[in-house]
Amino acid sequence: MTERPATPSSQDNPLVRKLSAFVRLSPNDVEVVAGMFRRRRNFAMGVELIHQGQVGQSAFVLASGWACSYKLLSGGTRQIVDFQVPGDFLGLRSVLFRTSDHNVEAVTTIQASEVTQRDLLAAFTETPRLATAVLWAASRDEAMVVEHLVNLGRRSASERMAHFLLELGARLRLVGMGNSTGFACPLSQYLLADALGLSAVHVNRVLRELREDGLVTFRRGRVEFRNYDALVDFASFDRAYLDHDGPLLS
Amino acid sequence: MTERPATPSSQDNPLVRKLSAFVRLSPNDVEVVAGMFRRRRNFAMGVELIHQGQVGQSAFVLASGWACSYKLLSGGTRQIVDFQVPGDFLGLRSVLFRTSDHNVEAVTTIQASEVTQRDLLAAFTETPRLATAVLWAASRDEAMVVEHLVNLGRRSASERMAHFLLELGARLRLVGMGNSTGFACPLSQYLLADALGLSAVHVNRVLRELREDGLVTFRRGRVEFRNYDALVDFASFDRAYLDHDGPLLS
Repeated sequence: MTERPATPSSQDNPLVRKLSAFVRLSPNDVEVVAGMFRRRRNFAMGVELIHQGQVGQSAFVLASGWACSYKLLSGGTRQIVDFQVPGDFLGLRSVLFRTSDHNVEAVTTIQASEVTQRDLLAAFTETPRLATAVLWAASRDEAMVVEHLVNLGRRSASERMAHFLLELGARLRLVGMGNSTGFACPLSQYLLADALGLSAVHVNRVLRELREDGLVTFRRGRVEFRNYDALVDFASFDRAYLDHDGPLLS
Repeated sequence: MTERPATPSSQDNPLVRKLSAFVRLSPNDVEVVAGMFRRRRNFAMGVELIHQGQVGQSAFVLASGWACSYKLLSGGTRQIVDFQVPGDFLGLRSVLFRTSDHNVEAVTTIQASEVTQRDLLAAFTETPRLATAVLWAASRDEAMVVEHLVNLGRRSASERMAHFLLELGARLRLVGMGNSTGFACPLSQYLLADALGLSAVHVNRVLRELREDGLVTFRRGRVEFRNYDALVDFASFDRAYLDHDGPLLS
């Protein structure tokens, strides 16, 4: 196959951008990934795309907007496990397991493309490098869930919030939606509370502390890093864990 | 390729057993997996196999014994993320990322085989089905970390312990090391405490409560389920999430 630059539209594809951080994708790989984006659908804010306990569930790739994955507990409370941004899979485990073990809900209006188990396995058979890249993406997601676990288990409320905002910033930079000064963020204080195991009032207080300490502000839908290095130190944020200096697998 | 039964030694291989729950492995797939087990080494209890922050780290596949993965925090405390049992990867993320984001330590004397990034990518190229199976295994591990997150965020201490023991039981059954009556468990109360975000004294009290309620006992290195169904209800344990009725991908 001759090497030619990917088409501009593929370069804009957030999943291509993300996977390219790990694996140098061939034009054919890019085609296969772009193919996953073709059946794009719109979902209104609040729509549940994946249902805990549902069998034979598809996955989705998020093209625009934000989503969140969460577990419902018997008492009616919920724990948000993670937020998804463009280029992320929604419910990848749902196509690999028989039953979905979590819910996924649209946080904003979103565009997402359905990916069936059959699509995914066909893509992996056509281009094994893609399976490796998706394994990497899944491992990165696991690394983030591990950090959220450490957040809940051992970090103070303000360290938790700082770590969370730094992580979101790093993820969004990877898909071209943020930079070292900050990023647009549609999350409410209620969503932050359910993710960080805090009350909404507590979220408010923690954000005020971080602002007053000159570290970070979150106002009118935008997170601004005021002192990035100090925030990294404060949160014990591991710069390596989401850092990418080019593909590992060329 | 002619279908022939895998050799008895391959059937005994816990990684083959585990991956077979998801993908029907061909004799060639089994050979490739068995190849990963060849360079088996012994490690003494307490040895650290993977170091947080280390670059160019290999992964291991655990053949016998137990290990634990954990994160060290700035204050010198640690959060155990998960325990590994035979058939599990140790540090899979370390070969997929440039830098290891966690530590792995031998909880007992263990046997483990080193797997380099090169081995793994070569295996995936030879048999793409294996990449899919490993992606499934990584997703299952992520599902467990998600449950541990819910444990810390939203479950009481005794629900946490009950959920943890049920999950370990399900994982060990999958590799033939336990059944519905219970399993051998080498974990100390200190390790349980670091995994569940409790003090060792609290672990002791919670285990006594579960025993007095006739649900489960953990004594002299053995977990015995006294009333499995009641324990599942008590912990809101999702039976589906580690259940396997045969390979999904035939």
